Formats: sequence, structure tokens, C-alpha cells
Amino acid sequence: VSRDGVDLAELVSRARDGQPRAVARLISLVEADSPQLAELARLLGSVPPRAHVVGLTGPPGVGKSTVTSALIGALRSADRRVGVLAIDPSSPFSGGALLGDRIRMTEHATDPGVFVRSMATRGQLGGLAAAAPQALRVLDAAGCDVVLLETVGVGQSEIEVIQLADTTVVLLAPGMGDGVQAAKAGVLEIADIFVVNKADTAEAGTVGRQLRQLQAMAAPRSDWQVPILRTVATRAEGVPELVAAIAAHRDWLAGSGELPRRRAARVRGEIEAIALAAVRHRFRELAGATGLAGLAGRVQSGELDPYAAADELLAGLATDTDR
Amino acid sequence: VSRDGVDLAELVSRARDGQPRAVARLISLVEADSPQLAELARLLGSVPPRAHVVGLTGPPGVGKSTVTSALIGALRSADRRVGVLAIDPSSPFSGGALLGDRIRMTEHATDPGVFVRSMATRGQLGGLAAAAPQALRVLDAAGCDVVLLETVGVGQSEIEVIQLADTTVVLLAPGMGDGVQAAKAGVLEIADIFVVNKADTAEAGTVGRQLRQLQAMAAPRSDWQVPILRTVATRAEGVPELVAAIAAHRDWLAGSGELPRRRAARVRGEIEAIALAAVRHRFRELAGATGLAGLAGRVQSGELDPYAAADELLAGLATDTDR
Repeated sequence: VSRDGVDLAELVSRARDGQPRAVARLISLVEADSPQLAELARLLGSVPPRAHVVGLTGPPGVGKSTVTSALIGALRSADRRVGVLAIDPSSPFSGGALLGDRIRMTEHATDPGVFVRSMATRGQLGGLAAAAPQALRVLDAAGCDVVLLETVGVGQSEIEVIQLADTTVVLLAPGMGDGVQAAKAGVLEIADIFVVNKADTAEAGTVGRQLRQLQAMAAPRSDWQVPILRTVATRAEGVPELVAAIAAHRDWLAGSGELPRRRAARVRGEIEAIALAAVRHRFRELAGATGLAGLAGRVQSGELDPYAAADELLAGLATDTDR
Repeated sequence: VSRDGVDLAELVSRARDGQPRAVARLISLVEADSPQLAELARLLGSVPPRAHVVGLTGPPGVGKSTVTSALIGALRSADRRVGVLAIDPSSPFSGGALLGDRIRMTEHATDPGVFVRSMATRGQLGGLAAAAPQALRVLDAAGCDVVLLETVGVGQSEIEVIQLADTTVVLLAPGMGDGVQAAKAGVLEIADIFVVNKADTAEAGTVGRQLRQLQAMAAPRSDWQVPILRTVATRAEGVPELVAAIAAHRDWLAGSGELPRRRAARVRGEIEAIALAAVRHRFRELAGATGLAGLAGRVQSGELDPYAAADELLAGLATDTDR
């Protein structure tokens, strides 16, 4: 039984029955980096994953939420149960995920076949890499057929998160920087499907051409041909084609042996992230001259260089482990 | 003496004399995650930092490189020695920093008072958080008065990198997503100075207004008033005002006691990142049933949950440490 008197096993059982409030509470536990996470993992652990995880990423302003909402609509028409996990960087303005669940995708708010949650990264030691896989496990246990994993931004951490996806959709839009900017942002090599959203504007063709040129320069990662689709998500144009491309990629994953490879990599990353978060917690607990603040002072005074300080920190960790 | 027959102490000595090739080689060592990093840190360690580190960040396409180049010009006119460290996500297209040093800021390429280096994150265990501070130490040792730290993207890792800066400049531009998008990207709370670039376009005023509204909603972080400047960097318009704002912020940092606080936090983060990278290296060396691949297989077969697997990984680390 948890601190606030709710039985975690009971919550997991309710989540498995598809009760939205239980799903929401479990993801909140994950987001808060709760001490109950190990118990939660134990309760969820015996379920093999079945949801197809579809990552959606791209620069801010490209229309990710609109595309996500259109995808939900199309998947719901096909009677698929859909989870949405939107990853927002921490923001002190909202005390959590900015805008978050309140105004996002309100048209699906009353549909019991859709779970929408935002996660902020605030306060997480080890960040998203440790927390996001647990949230995916919760949505999986709740019976989602498809989980849409939406990330804001194009940084290193977000690329790590998007690697949790089975299928990664990279969104671009005219006027958001050209194809070279996309390449600089490191998204070309993670895309299984490209979508040029806002395709009803004049420069949409240019973005598509630049992408094709950059693709032609790159060595193919596999025999999967990365399609470049066009959408006007505000009018749901191109969305059936996107749903079809996602299904085709899922079939390719299953047929090529790539799916178990990706999922094994995902689990390795998940285990490592949990372990690193634990190490970081222990570092923060070390005090005195071999704690972080003490070591930083000794580096600043010229007594130690940073590598020697890191060695002392690791030695403190080993001593701590022996207790 | 290093593997390729070059004495590291000699390289550091040449870098201190301001020789650009020595600076470039040392930063390449840092980028490659060389086993000589501990020795390099020892050689550099006794120099207290003197360069003012100015971070420049914002979404792709906003004109960061153009603003950086204009800033270099203005700082050089004032006879300041300038280092530029541009952080690019890894890209297989270039085998390193995309575009990188070759086409970037070519107008300053022959100026001996300017060091420009790009760093990719490819292959780094622990990523930028461990490597970027060492590169800053090299540029500091080379006598830079100002180091411009330019990051692409707005993700969690990039925000960690930008926290290495004494002064953080956040760039936005019309048409790159509005102020709410900027807030979602988590950049509002890290800005010491806002710059709306491409200010000769019609929507520039809108971006500035939205920023002021968002600022008004947020609790002030300090008594520093975050200015919102406008530039047209392609014509160097607004650049003298930006240089003045950076100098004013430096004076505020020195006068308010904030500078030592920021630098202590930077050193704590640096030590922790080096230690975490070492832990990650050790994780990767563990093999068999308690190595990452073995543990992932046991999680996938349902034998272990991920938290129990992380505990086994940490136990393997402790055993390994005892050797």
C-alpha cells in the first residue's frame, strides 16, 4: 500500500482493465520518480509488450500535436486503442508539463479508447531515459494497440527517447528551417517515415526535394525505403497515407527481424538508464570533502583537476556500496 | 607522449601560446573521448578560468551562426580574443560535426585571434556534459577573453550544455514558432538575454510581445532584468547593443556574487558527468548474464523486471570495482 493509502497492485489491476484514472495515476508516479517504481516494474514486468510504439518528433512549431490528434482520429476509426505520451521539457511556468493534458487534444478527451498523458522531465535524475520506458509499460498494460510518443525538440535526450519507438516519424514543415537544418538537428538518421506537414504552402515542395537530396547522399540504414509524405493535418489531408505507412513499417519490422533487435536495444537502454539514475542519486547523497560540493571546491581552488575529482567521487560510491 | 608520438604537455604549452593547430588537436582529443583526457585535465587543471563563456541557443534556422559570426566581428573590433565552440548533434553524413569548421564562419578563418571548433556528440558515453567543459578549459588556456558556446536544438542535453555558460543568449526569430513554442522548448527559464533575430520582418514585434507577456507571468529568477533585443545579424544591426548587454550581464554576475555560484555549479556538473561516463564505460564492459545484453534477454523473457535487472547491473559494477 502506497503512502497515500492506495494499493499499487490494485492500481495496476485497474489500469489493466483500461481505467483511465488508474493509468493517469501510474504515469504520475513514474513522472514523479517515486520510490515505488521498482515495485511498479515488478507488477508490470510479466507482461510482454504488445503495443506498437510510434515516435513523432520534429522542431517546435511544426504541428506535432495537430498531426498526433489527426492520427488518433484515424486510429480510433479503425477501432484501435491509442495511448499518447507527450514529452515536454520541464518548465517552471506550469509546474510540470506546459499546457499539458488540459488543452491538448481536447477533442479526444472523452473517448475511453484514448489515453493522453504529458510527462515533464523536471526533477528527474537520469531524466526521460529512465522514466519514459516505464510510462510505455503502463500504457502497454492498459491494452493500447498503438502508443504515440511525441517529443518536443530535437536534442540528444529527445533522440534517446525517440529510440524507444518501434517506428519513428520525423515531421518537418516549410519555413521551419530547410533540409540542411534538419540534418544539423540530427533527425535524418532516426526517421523511418518523413512527414512534411503544412504541405499546402508554397515551399513544401522545396523541403521534400531537399530531404530527397540528403537521403540520396546518405548510406541506407536498411532495405526499408524511408517514405516522404505530405500532410495538411489541420484538414486531416494525407493522414490515411501516414497510417498506411506506419502499418507498412510495422510489417517490415516484423518480417525483417528488426523488431526484436530494436526491442532488445530498448531494454538494454532502459536497464542502463535506471542504473545510472541510481548512481546519480548516490552521488548526490555523498557529503563532505568527497561529496560533489566538496570536490568542486577543491577543483576551483586548484587542488584537484576534474578527472581526479571524478575518481574520488567514484571511490566514495564504492565505499558507499560496501555498507 | 601520446600514441601518435606527440607530447601532450608540449601541445598544451603550444595551446597556451595561442597556436591554433594545438588548440584544434586538443579539442579533437576531447571530442574523441581519448584515454588521455585525465592527463589533459591534469595539465590544464591549475589554470583558473578567465574567459567569459557566452552561450547562444535557440531552435534550428533562427540564425545562430550568423549572430555568432556578427558577435565575433564586434568582439574582434574591440581586440578581444574569441573562442567559438559549436555543438552539433552527431550526424553520419559528415562523420562528425555536420558542415562543421569548413564552411562555418569562413570570414574569420584567417584571424589568429579567433578559434572556431565544432564538436559532435557521436560515440560519447556521457555525451556533451562530460566533453564540453574540457573543450572550454582548452579555449581558456589558449587565452580567450570570450568563448561563444553555440548549440543547435533545444533539448535537455543542450540545456545542460548551455548551463556551462556564464551568460546565456536565447535566439528566436519570427516564423520559427511563437513564444508559446519557445516556452514549450524550455528556453525561457535559461535566458539571460533574449534576441529576436530577423527583426526586419513583419512578425518580429509579435515575438517580442509574446516574450514580454511570458516573462510577466514568470517569477523573476534574480534582480537581473532579462532584456529582449532585436537584431538583423546579416547586416550586423543590433549587434553593438547585444555586445553591450553581454558586458552588462557580466558586470552584474561579478557584482551580485552570481558568478562564483554559477561556476561552482558548473564544476559540480562537470565532475558528475565525468564520473557517470566512467560508470557507463564499466557497464559496457560487463558481459555474461549480468552484462547489459544478458540482463536485457532475461527482462524480455519475463525472468526479471527492469529495476531488478538494474540492481544486478549495479552489483556487477561493485564487484568490478573491488578488483
